[in-house]
Amino acid sequence: MTTASAPGKIILFGEHAVVSGVAALGGAIDLRAKVTLQDLPGKVLIETEDLALSGFSMDLITGQLMSSDAVHATRYVSAALREFEIRDISVKIESDIPPAAGLGSSAAIVVATVTAINEHLGLGLSRKEIASTAYHIEKRVQNGLGSQMDTALATFGGYCRVTREVQPIDLPQLDLIVGCTKMSHDTFSEVEKVQRLKECYPDVVEPIFQAIGAISERAVPLIREQEMSRLGELMNLNHGLLEALGVCTRELSELVYAARNVGSALGAKLTGAGGGGCIIALPQTGPREALMAALRQARGSAFAVKTGCEGVRLESDS
Amino acid sequence: MTTASAPGKIILFGEHAVVSGVAALGGAIDLRAKVTLQDLPGKVLIETEDLALSGFSMDLITGQLMSSDAVHATRYVSAALREFEIRDISVKIESDIPPAAGLGSSAAIVVATVTAINEHLGLGLSRKEIASTAYHIEKRVQNGLGSQMDTALATFGGYCRVTREVQPIDLPQLDLIVGCTKMSHDTFSEVEKVQRLKECYPDVVEPIFQAIGAISERAVPLIREQEMSRLGELMNLNHGLLEALGVCTRELSELVYAARNVGSALGAKLTGAGGGGCIIALPQTGPREALMAALRQARGSAFAVKTGCEGVRLESDS
Repeated sequence: MTTASAPGKIILFGEHAVVSGVAALGGAIDLRAKVTLQDLPGKVLIETEDLALSGFSMDLITGQLMSSDAVHATRYVSAALREFEIRDISVKIESDIPPAAGLGSSAAIVVATVTAINEHLGLGLSRKEIASTAYHIEKRVQNGLGSQMDTALATFGGYCRVTREVQPIDLPQLDLIVGCTKMSHDTFSEVEKVQRLKECYPDVVEPIFQAIGAISERAVPLIREQEMSRLGELMNLNHGLLEALGVCTRELSELVYAARNVGSALGAKLTGAGGGGCIIALPQTGPREALMAALRQARGSAFAVKTGCEGVRLESDS
Repeated sequence: MTTASAPGKIILFGEHAVVSGVAALGGAIDLRAKVTLQDLPGKVLIETEDLALSGFSMDLITGQLMSSDAVHATRYVSAALREFEIRDISVKIESDIPPAAGLGSSAAIVVATVTAINEHLGLGLSRKEIASTAYHIEKRVQNGLGSQMDTALATFGGYCRVTREVQPIDLPQLDLIVGCTKMSHDTFSEVEKVQRLKECYPDVVEPIFQAIGAISERAVPLIREQEMSRLGELMNLNHGLLEALGVCTRELSELVYAARNVGSALGAKLTGAGGGGCIIALPQTGPREALMAALRQARGSAFAVKTGCEGVRLESDS
């Protein structure tokens, strides 16, 4: 039996603009997906348990109806098994990361699966090879749309700065509150929407991307020096620019304003592709209950995360 | 007896960014302020009747308590009377324009008052001199903060494009729906907020201003050719950029999303300084009741306006 776990991620700054080559900044979070492999002669069994949003579900690849969350998880695992031509195995997936919410759930599952396979079969892949293989698997499942940031953070943890390439960057931990709209989103259609806007109005959208890139660059020293109120202002600025790009929704906007006005957050923004999914809010120091309550009152789910957390690891009980 | 009336205005695009010299676009609307002068030996009486938000109120300059809307109106009229050293007069103000909502109520009152004085005393001021005098009066009352756009539109009507200077621009009428938060705003503090943001983060805010300027320039041919769905997209883009500048509020955001999602507006944005005041929404062709109902459901007041309307005029019954 081999178990590996990998973290989810949040994008702190720079989503969407990053496709034009300006900087984005993301961090691994302390929610993880855990994948356990066990030999099972003559069968392939993928079992998903305790997936964050839909509870228990079970399936043979050729088999029964599953919840949509389970379908989500098993697609990535199946692709990883095909990549390495693996049969005679049972795979158990346990994840704390809400799927399809922009929190890197699928990258965490793929990276944990590839890492477990690497260990189980003694393939000797380096971390870099694991990240790269996982990226290509995720991209294939998502019809060509993959995020190097997601698989890099799931593999290496910490933070990374992304421009044309992904660079790890050493920054201290941040405590954030995530608010989820409970509405899943389609990353592909949000990316397309922004690209169409850019083609129609390049003289409007290119300066927006430039402003977003400047925010990402400014955020790095502010996180390093823990200048929280400034960081909150940048989150608010970035949120408005994402609103301009058309990827905010009424529900996301309500969570953002609830966090700022009712929850006294220093700043709040949508995170990830938008069109649904989550916001992140930067709480004041002290108890965060009021902020979490404000988000729940605004019809969201709310939980605390830390950023800059550990990357993929083999679990000791394996 | 001399009566003059002048229109309110809406800013279509470019608010806040215009202070940096990029283009803004505004139009006179079909809500008007009417000012009637009558000789009244030995007294100065300023009477405000049917002011849009607070109904009837009456006052001698040295006299009684008035509603805040009446104070608002009488400050500008008093300043105009002082400018021309006028006594022995009664001034009656009637206005359809909600005060302190970013709809140019004070400029309309000042321009109508100066025009009535000009006629009543036979001063022979040109329209250009009326606009300029009104601008200086408004600026003095507002402690140095005046909008040339407001007094120019109240005087000349139609549309104007503002950069460093104000230029009239010939464009066809637009039908818009205004949604008011019923929260008055402080233009000065919103302008200060944006200026502070610009000083802190010039590399972020200057590209935002540039994007807003590009939106204003693009809007002109779209209004000319009545390309409504494109125009709506630009309104949404501009709204997000104002959100980034920190001048949107939860209430304004709720009206904007109600207009777009429930009212099927082609686009919606806050108009004016923000921090309260109003949004404008571009309705689809056909009945507008659903859009107005959506705004009212979102706790706003709603009314239809046309833009590009007539400037100040003497009323025939005078």
